[in-house]
Amino acid sequence: MIIDCHGHYTTAPQSLWDWRKGQVADPKNFSKKLNISDQEIRDSLEGAQLKIQRERGTDLTFFSPRAGSMEHHVGDVKVSEAWSRECNDLIHRACTLHPANFAAVCQLPQSPGVPPANCIPELERCVNELGFIGCNLNPDPSGGWWKEPPLTDRWWYPLYEKLVELEVPAMVHVSSSCNPAFHFTGAHYINADTTAFMQFLTSDLFKDFPALKFVIPHGGGAVPYHWGRYRGLAQDMKRPPLKELLLNNVYFDTCVYHQPGIDLLLKVIPADNILFAAEVVGAVRGIDPETGRYYDDTRQYIENAPGLPDADKKKIFSGNVGKVYPRAARLLRRPGP
Amino acid sequence: MIIDCHGHYTTAPQSLWDWRKGQVADPKNFSKKLNISDQEIRDSLEGAQLKIQRERGTDLTFFSPRAGSMEHHVGDVKVSEAWSRECNDLIHRACTLHPANFAAVCQLPQSPGVPPANCIPELERCVNELGFIGCNLNPDPSGGWWKEPPLTDRWWYPLYEKLVELEVPAMVHVSSSCNPAFHFTGAHYINADTTAFMQFLTSDLFKDFPALKFVIPHGGGAVPYHWGRYRGLAQDMKRPPLKELLLNNVYFDTCVYHQPGIDLLLKVIPADNILFAAEVVGAVRGIDPETGRYYDDTRQYIENAPGLPDADKKKIFSGNVGKVYPRAARLLRRPGP
Repeated sequence: MIIDCHGHYTTAPQSLWDWRKGQVADPKNFSKKLNISDQEIRDSLEGAQLKIQRERGTDLTFFSPRAGSMEHHVGDVKVSEAWSRECNDLIHRACTLHPANFAAVCQLPQSPGVPPANCIPELERCVNELGFIGCNLNPDPSGGWWKEPPLTDRWWYPLYEKLVELEVPAMVHVSSSCNPAFHFTGAHYINADTTAFMQFLTSDLFKDFPALKFVIPHGGGAVPYHWGRYRGLAQDMKRPPLKELLLNNVYFDTCVYHQPGIDLLLKVIPADNILFAAEVVGAVRGIDPETGRYYDDTRQYIENAPGLPDADKKKIFSGNVGKVYPRAARLLRRPGP
Repeated sequence: MIIDCHGHYTTAPQSLWDWRKGQVADPKNFSKKLNISDQEIRDSLEGAQLKIQRERGTDLTFFSPRAGSMEHHVGDVKVSEAWSRECNDLIHRACTLHPANFAAVCQLPQSPGVPPANCIPELERCVNELGFIGCNLNPDPSGGWWKEPPLTDRWWYPLYEKLVELEVPAMVHVSSSCNPAFHFTGAHYINADTTAFMQFLTSDLFKDFPALKFVIPHGGGAVPYHWGRYRGLAQDMKRPPLKELLLNNVYFDTCVYHQPGIDLLLKVIPADNILFAAEVVGAVRGIDPETGRYYDDTRQYIENAPGLPDADKKKIFSGNVGKVYPRAARLLRRPGP
């Protein structure tokens, strides 16, 4: 079984984006009901995520709203709450229509400067009422201006308490960038991954929350490439070794779009801490002329990784899911219809 | 011959930091003369950079002021100008005392929101009067708030015109971070490298300045690890292949502190675009328990890289310097005393 822990509903029907446009234009008087049929949802997935699952032989995708559209920086907290609810409801419908193909991951109604505890009701609704198994947590709801306290600050603790209670991990995922310095998928996403890891490295967060789980997407940003630097920085700071300090709580996905990158990831990060992912349909959509295959067909890189033991491959493709996403593991154990 | 293109005077005598403290405390009335003897300079280098050169068998270091202390965000442009001048003069003295060991690279008197053209007089002084061969350019003089236009904006063009005229490359190097989200050597440095590369990728800067040369330090941030992502993003944007788009102008150093990282760098980036560097005495000072050698002894990783042809090794250690740092190449051709 191959589980992709990182997929976004980038292909959602146009009505969703039109709804958002209306909401942003006049949030106070906006009351339009989002009107999308089941067939429209099916159509939006059929030629995209579902087709790709079939072509690449992957089974289940952890499916969340489009990351670039979370836009926590747009409007106030009420706007963020209403938008998150619509996006999450649509994810729920997609997952209900295709329960064998998708498990639901929610967007949180974060808003710059608003204590993250405000996300708890929507998180509980998604998890307890709708069966969601994970969430995306934005370390920078300002959209590229990085004004929030680090993820290790007590600012975030009430939300972490709830995550632990619900047995839900958070993928650290920023949204679009309003800062002209940062291209969103080429710089902001990758920088956020690197930034979050370094925040974790310098803190005792996981002493306070030994059961809290984070997935750092995009192969961990720059972290595996600079693994020696991070080991050395931790050592200079008299921190415990990274394995002991972080690797019970921090996991990396495999959204790295070429063989040498995946080979490095597999070499330096223990297989126990790697989760398969492709982020399709996502940031890179073309075919690599060097391989003749899609850049984001990350399964091929894992399959072709030299010397990767079968047991490790199994952990990466599905075996690690249980310890990071216990709710997904329970879904998978549920008898079929 | 082994040339290290990235060294900072992190071990400068305490008087320099005391001078800075005085300057920052009361910039208007501060008029103290910096008083450091030649012997103090020699002593500050002897047990550090010079010892390391001897131990590791490297020959020449391109030597610049401590990056974390450039602090372009502290005080106004006058403060930055006075501080840069002191730092650069000290670098000049260190290089004059040890002309076989160091070639000088200057700090620029940048200041947030101040057009970079203000740096031209200090750049000209350093290059034309003092024989400097390169400079460090900070893409974020705000110190972690990223308020400056991207490096590809016309904002920077007057400085680029001067760099081209003087045949001086710029290393893209941020200073310390005031933003609590970004640890300076663990996140801000690496993010800046990634950010700058993506800025270059999305622009036509090098059509306007075909002779402009940038060195991206710290192994290019996250870029080589995500080389497939960057190739794919460029392709989706209908940009030319990266080699054609950037690799006549953008170079990567080897400050990556473990063997798998260097192996990846050497695999994906052409040897023509890699410059040897260690950044000593720098961000990581310990000994790697996995190898028993210093993390930042990057020469070992190049020497041990499997299958690296001797010709490529020569390019990386010294051969590429001529095309990036023509003034250094001329220094090296100068007959000795």
